[in-house]
Amino acid sequence: MSTRPAEVIAAFWAAANARDWTTFGSLLAQDVVYELPQTRERVRGREAYVRFNAEYPGDWTLEPVRIVGAGARHGASWTRFLVDGTEQTGLCFFDFDEAGLIARLHDFWPTPYEPPPGREHLTERF
Amino acid sequence: MSTRPAEVIAAFWAAANARDWTTFGSLLAQDVVYELPQTRERVRGREAYVRFNAEYPGDWTLEPVRIVGAGARHGASWTRFLVDGTEQTGLCFFDFDEAGLIARLHDFWPTPYEPPPGREHLTERF
Repeated sequence: MSTRPAEVIAAFWAAANARDWTTFGSLLAQDVVYELPQTRERVRGREAYVRFNAEYPGDWTLEPVRIVGAGARHGASWTRFLVDGTEQTGLCFFDFDEAGLIARLHDFWPTPYEPPPGREHLTERF
Repeated sequence: MSTRPAEVIAAFWAAANARDWTTFGSLLAQDVVYELPQTRERVRGREAYVRFNAEYPGDWTLEPVRIVGAGARHGASWTRFLVDGTEQTGLCFFDFDEAGLIARLHDFWPTPYEPPPGREHLTERF
């Protein structure tokens, strides 16, 4: 088991994309806590969190855009998802336990919004 | 000038919170590119990006929650903002140039949403 966060995060997303829930679960601490701060939902424990992913509806695939890992205890990823043909962005901050397993995830799903007025003199649109 | 991403990101947020735009600008590459993928806005260049921050409306303060830096070229931060008394979440992925300056930022502002149905058996609310 690597204790390098970037490698664990890459393996985590590869396992999710492959629906390899055995490998996916092996990267998680038994008492992993998954939180969605936007909806204020929380999933506790490896079994429930594997099910949360395995049961996630829709025909989805994913591709990491950036994976950042530092030291042995923290990491982050920016992931592009294609869900039923629609692109979605997932941003996740990972905390690791002493064994190098994922112990806590804070997961965010930012959605498009219209820019507020007053900064058009500094910005372009793409 | 440190070339360690986590230290540069910490200095970047401290300078923003202090409105120390000289220090803030010294951490940026001359041709820095700032993007808001949600609004599809882009700001090009150090001067415009410093102004974008200096002119940002509201009475705001910030506090980093997680800062992740890896190698010399990538980093990420999760920052809690208080804007006119309302808490906002900023998530930012940083790319660094060879001199250790911030060369590209991808900045996200996730907002609350209602959880979709069908996963109540796995989640609790907090």
